[in-house]
Amino acid sequence: MQRAAALVRRGCGPRTPSSWGRSQSSAAAEASAVLKVRPERSRRERILTLESMNPQVKAVEYAVRGPIVLKAGEIELELQRLSSSQWPLGGAGSSACVLFPQVMALCTYPNLLDSPSFPEDAKKRARRILQACGGNSLGSYSASQGVNCIREDVAAYITRRDGGVPADPDNIYLTTGASDGISTILKILVSGGGKSRTGVMIPIPQYPLYSAVISELDAIQVNYYLDEENCWALNVNELRRAVQEAKDHCDPKVLCIINPGNPTGQVQSRKCIEDVIHFAWEEKLFLLADEVRMSPLGGSGSFYNWWSSPSLWPSRCGYRGGYMEVINLHPEIKGQLVKLLSVRLCPPVSGQAAMDIVVNPPVAGEESFEQFSREKESVLGNLARKAKLTEDLFNQVPGIHCNPLQGAMYAFPRIFIPAKAVEAAQAHQMAPDMFYCMKLLEETGICVVPGSGFGQREGTYHFRMTILPPVEKLKTVLQKVKDFHINFLEKYA
Amino acid sequence: MQRAAALVRRGCGPRTPSSWGRSQSSAAAEASAVLKVRPERSRRERILTLESMNPQVKAVEYAVRGPIVLKAGEIELELQRLSSSQWPLGGAGSSACVLFPQVMALCTYPNLLDSPSFPEDAKKRARRILQACGGNSLGSYSASQGVNCIREDVAAYITRRDGGVPADPDNIYLTTGASDGISTILKILVSGGGKSRTGVMIPIPQYPLYSAVISELDAIQVNYYLDEENCWALNVNELRRAVQEAKDHCDPKVLCIINPGNPTGQVQSRKCIEDVIHFAWEEKLFLLADEVRMSPLGGSGSFYNWWSSPSLWPSRCGYRGGYMEVINLHPEIKGQLVKLLSVRLCPPVSGQAAMDIVVNPPVAGEESFEQFSREKESVLGNLARKAKLTEDLFNQVPGIHCNPLQGAMYAFPRIFIPAKAVEAAQAHQMAPDMFYCMKLLEETGICVVPGSGFGQREGTYHFRMTILPPVEKLKTVLQKVKDFHINFLEKYA
Repeated sequence: MQRAAALVRRGCGPRTPSSWGRSQSSAAAEASAVLKVRPERSRRERILTLESMNPQVKAVEYAVRGPIVLKAGEIELELQRLSSSQWPLGGAGSSACVLFPQVMALCTYPNLLDSPSFPEDAKKRARRILQACGGNSLGSYSASQGVNCIREDVAAYITRRDGGVPADPDNIYLTTGASDGISTILKILVSGGGKSRTGVMIPIPQYPLYSAVISELDAIQVNYYLDEENCWALNVNELRRAVQEAKDHCDPKVLCIINPGNPTGQVQSRKCIEDVIHFAWEEKLFLLADEVRMSPLGGSGSFYNWWSSPSLWPSRCGYRGGYMEVINLHPEIKGQLVKLLSVRLCPPVSGQAAMDIVVNPPVAGEESFEQFSREKESVLGNLARKAKLTEDLFNQVPGIHCNPLQGAMYAFPRIFIPAKAVEAAQAHQMAPDMFYCMKLLEETGICVVPGSGFGQREGTYHFRMTILPPVEKLKTVLQKVKDFHINFLEKYA
Repeated sequence: MQRAAALVRRGCGPRTPSSWGRSQSSAAAEASAVLKVRPERSRRERILTLESMNPQVKAVEYAVRGPIVLKAGEIELELQRLSSSQWPLGGAGSSACVLFPQVMALCTYPNLLDSPSFPEDAKKRARRILQACGGNSLGSYSASQGVNCIREDVAAYITRRDGGVPADPDNIYLTTGASDGISTILKILVSGGGKSRTGVMIPIPQYPLYSAVISELDAIQVNYYLDEENCWALNVNELRRAVQEAKDHCDPKVLCIINPGNPTGQVQSRKCIEDVIHFAWEEKLFLLADEVRMSPLGGSGSFYNWWSSPSLWPSRCGYRGGYMEVINLHPEIKGQLVKLLSVRLCPPVSGQAAMDIVVNPPVAGEESFEQFSREKESVLGNLARKAKLTEDLFNQVPGIHCNPLQGAMYAFPRIFIPAKAVEAAQAHQMAPDMFYCMKLLEETGICVVPGSGFGQREGTYHFRMTILPPVEKLKTVLQKVKDFHINFLEKYA
């Protein structure tokens, strides 16, 4: 009632054209405020409940941002309240190439193009992007498929990367991060009911976006298991097993490959990929190749009928840039894809610009080349060192086994959880690895994601940990995990 | 085969940890290139066809970016090929407040915080945003609900706007533009099959995102008609009619209100909004209030169980910022909402920053205040003049009727289309207003969207036209439309 009283004072806004501007705005604002004035409905009577909501959404699971991360956020806030210092939790900055923020700033505020403190190659890139944007601004909507010249640059990048095999800009679709591309393509592919519901084959472990989108779309998740004993290799016989078993209860139509793996980080061999392609051909599967982790210098990826992906270069991901390359799609389906993308108008234009910088690194002769090369070597060298360090240290701990880290910013070690700890977890109604990770968080402040959120063979347990923190901090983290693990084994022996 | 030959030259990438870095990247790149090597499948055999694709996606219609806009894009490209000059088609720049790009540039490239050429209030805003971002960078992922301090700023903005009625930051969700918020909330709400499928009440005419998302989600669209003869007013009796008729074949659960209207631009009266709230209460409808167009200084909006919306201030929309305020939601459903949002990780952080600037305009005493106020008055004054100009000019043309433009950057005039033109359209298998708009585009280069894309009472025809171009250009455009219309009436008399 307070609300109502507070608002009745304002008069009713005029409804003539002269109301444009302030009075229009206040009339509308008033209407909005009025909407908050409503009789109280008791909680029992709420319109939208777990019973009445969309059951597919209810079924979605998404561990990467699940209870562990929420708990970590709470701890972080609590510590901020207790002290004014920052809690060094997850994430971690990186000294990314300075060309990137320079070009982004120039695109954002073109007045800076007159400033002598920016290098010429940064200005050249910014001008090229701005000239292709509506109103020469990142602030206008773009075409739904993305800015033309940025799609051309992505195609040129893929062509270079693939040793000259040409990519067609018409097949490039810019997206709001990789997640958007994956869910858009899956949305188009899914159909049928009962036994003809679409089956989507995904690796286990997988990046949980897949299982979440499959659930949202009411499709059928068809698991194939990566071979942990063989460095998470993909075995075509396992694909065959999975597709045969799935045919009993659904119509398998899509095969998702994540390469480099996420969270597992393995890089599949050429032989394996060739086998996969022949398998997809034989089984008439739409092949979806998630290559988000392909290059730390901006991701990429493709579809065979095909998608392709975004930058995960640290300090870029927040821009939500991404792309997909869709090959061999029926022209009518291309039209359907563009239509679907256009409902969301366009991907963030700043994210598109970010993508353009990522696929256009400085080349020899350009002002920024030397610094860029130094920074890149340093980042990649560091990652390689940290990957080795992590693998070595984990494998010294009894009850932890860690495959080599090949192409990810993560480790995904297997952990032994004693029977008593499994029981304790069950008593808390938690998955055993969730219980383990929650204890790790509470006792050390280290936030990792339980393997159950990605999927794992029954009876095995894992967690995903980033290796992004600086070497010295990473050493400390690994030492703490080691100590925690040894204590944990003792406690639940 | 060319592809295969081109690629076989490369050896198989190593699968050891030392492959991190360049060789990892090229091994993965090679794998990707191999994926493009596949036996040709003839078009008839394609896996994904209009018959096998998701039928709900196929049913989606989205006129705002439909054939007219595609055609306009083709003409634009053609003209660019013919000359190097720009074709002044739609869109239109605006001299937006300079504080906006300044803060965005500072956030993007924090080194600029040391530059003396930026005002202090811009730096203050940028520092505040960056301090709240992970790694003090727009490039890191944020919390899925959005950056905390930006949600606080949005809540404070709503509180001010609503005359002190408090908004709770916990109820604010930052989104990737308004479209993302609308589709996320509808996704949660939709359930049931057969006669218990969820009915979603939307105004006709409507912004076609609604019909598109309803179709995607396989929900039932329940139309209520705005009263064109009464300046597009919303009449609760019409809501009653619509909901009663809908109950025969679905379960009406959601009532969408667009205020100010889109594309119609009307601002509903306080009485009307109160009636709507009581109606929603009686019928136990989830009330979704789209107030995207509320303030040209950044939109807003709310749910009763409730969503609220983004900036459409010209030159901001490309950042895809947005927010929703969700009121009175069951805590369990809030958890479901956060889970669903987290599957997409986070909205673009640059769009979140843009939203923060929009809800934090300069106040008296701040360095940018005077310039901002001048710019704002000028933009709003211009819009008001152009709104009046457009209404007056359209109403002078025989066969065109235009309601007052109140709260939109669009006019949505009703046009008379003679019987012979309707026949000609049918011969081209086009809706009559699509035929009209296509002719207008071909003959004048002016791109407007046919009313059939928004919905209209049967037998009436409209188009949506932006009033954003500068006054002199707008006058020319209006004169051309007038001449075209008179010729059109003569030709098809």
